[in-house]
Amino acid sequence: MHPESVQNVIGIFDSGVGGLTVLRCVTDLLPAEKIVYLGDSARVPYGTKGDDTVKRFALENARFLMRFKPKLIIVACNTASAVAVDHVAANIPVPVFGVVRPGAEAACRISDHGRIGVMATETTIGSGAYQRHILELRPEATVFAVACPLLVPIIEDGRGRTDQIARLAASEYVTKLANKVDTILLGCTHYPLLADLIGEIAGPGVKIVDSAGETAETVFRQMKAMNLLAGKEKRGQIYFMATDAPGRFASIGSRFLGKKIKKVYHVKQEEFFEKTQ
Amino acid sequence: MHPESVQNVIGIFDSGVGGLTVLRCVTDLLPAEKIVYLGDSARVPYGTKGDDTVKRFALENARFLMRFKPKLIIVACNTASAVAVDHVAANIPVPVFGVVRPGAEAACRISDHGRIGVMATETTIGSGAYQRHILELRPEATVFAVACPLLVPIIEDGRGRTDQIARLAASEYVTKLANKVDTILLGCTHYPLLADLIGEIAGPGVKIVDSAGETAETVFRQMKAMNLLAGKEKRGQIYFMATDAPGRFASIGSRFLGKKIKKVYHVKQEEFFEKTQ
Repeated sequence: MHPESVQNVIGIFDSGVGGLTVLRCVTDLLPAEKIVYLGDSARVPYGTKGDDTVKRFALENARFLMRFKPKLIIVACNTASAVAVDHVAANIPVPVFGVVRPGAEAACRISDHGRIGVMATETTIGSGAYQRHILELRPEATVFAVACPLLVPIIEDGRGRTDQIARLAASEYVTKLANKVDTILLGCTHYPLLADLIGEIAGPGVKIVDSAGETAETVFRQMKAMNLLAGKEKRGQIYFMATDAPGRFASIGSRFLGKKIKKVYHVKQEEFFEKTQ
Repeated sequence: MHPESVQNVIGIFDSGVGGLTVLRCVTDLLPAEKIVYLGDSARVPYGTKGDDTVKRFALENARFLMRFKPKLIIVACNTASAVAVDHVAANIPVPVFGVVRPGAEAACRISDHGRIGVMATETTIGSGAYQRHILELRPEATVFAVACPLLVPIIEDGRGRTDQIARLAASEYVTKLANKVDTILLGCTHYPLLADLIGEIAGPGVKIVDSAGETAETVFRQMKAMNLLAGKEKRGQIYFMATDAPGRFASIGSRFLGKKIKKVYHVKQEEFFEKTQ
């Protein structure tokens, strides 16, 4: 079903379509690379699930990507990065990059006074990963963390700035940070699609930042340092794979990627295991 | 991890906690039975996923329940019932009951004028299963179907009648049925937790019905006819199993069951497959 013969790629996985906001930045910086993007849309979301479950899913995704002999793997899901990036890295023989550390770096760099709000899924917030990384990078910072469990389903339902439910939910979460922070870090790859609404509610004095751009730059720097970059004469290509229905992935995913996704390969979950039932 | 020695049970599965509203009615009618309830909380929700994925998950769940030598299996998830009950029945050597047919029967029986609204997940509505069963039972009926993708996450987030977001979302969906129907069928096992709000918005002229009670009665009648009932002297017991974190299942599930869930066994997804990775 999928192009096993594709090798020497950048492997990217996410719980579904959210990581496409990261993929977008990666392709901007690394247009000559072959990329396999795996969306685990059959088991999405990860953000409301337990750490052990997310660790297991993340490692299964990474192992699946190993078929394409990746130069490196990007965990383009905040929840999986928050709870599973070390677990994946310990079990996979190629470099593994998450989005939490780069997101924390971006927030720490642009925040004027170190008063940083983090909006993310329940599991990401519960892990304390963003809080930890921000305080490591900027020990005098104050971090305000808000779990936003309704934002992913609202965004996946196609609701944006003008939708009343999106506005009410975003207000409920952002209000918890109001007058406390100078920067809000969008700690979930879905949230950039509501960045304008969140920024409007937070007000003009608050900067909004996400992980995607910084993650792509981190990967670019590391690939350069490790001499892993594809020659500039190469033509990059993206192979999309999803564990649930390809059509649904393509239609919802196109909004996240910012351009039309034409072909999506279907990966059956059984292929994750050595032997199927 | 789980009590494999438990045998001769009623097996019930759902994508997560929603089916506990069905379990509640089953235990009311069948207090002497041993019941294994499996919530596939690691892969929840099913209602936004493709038919093939839901079929595969449903059959895996049913096959797992076969370890407990069930007298029968109840698919206590509307989405899985809508798209996968025949697929499960064709591959499992015990009787399999879904919730869609009983729900359709209940709606057809109580509707005064056959103007029936169905609220359910995207995948359930997309399958046309409720529409088909209602028209089979009552060919002169008119069915109005509304997919309600935000209600499951809103209910799982613990929001009820007094919550503004719950109210806004329920209004958006129920308004599509207003002045058209005399009965609304809650075609998702989560929705009974918002029945009061939906009823309030729909107004006093509209009856609200769900599948749970009718499903339990169907199962009771069939078990009696097939001589499968446990002796009245037996003491029933419920074994809860979940594929995601047991603690989360217990805390959210207790709201659906209407009483505290004390012990939940954790089932790793790998156990669904003959050989694990």
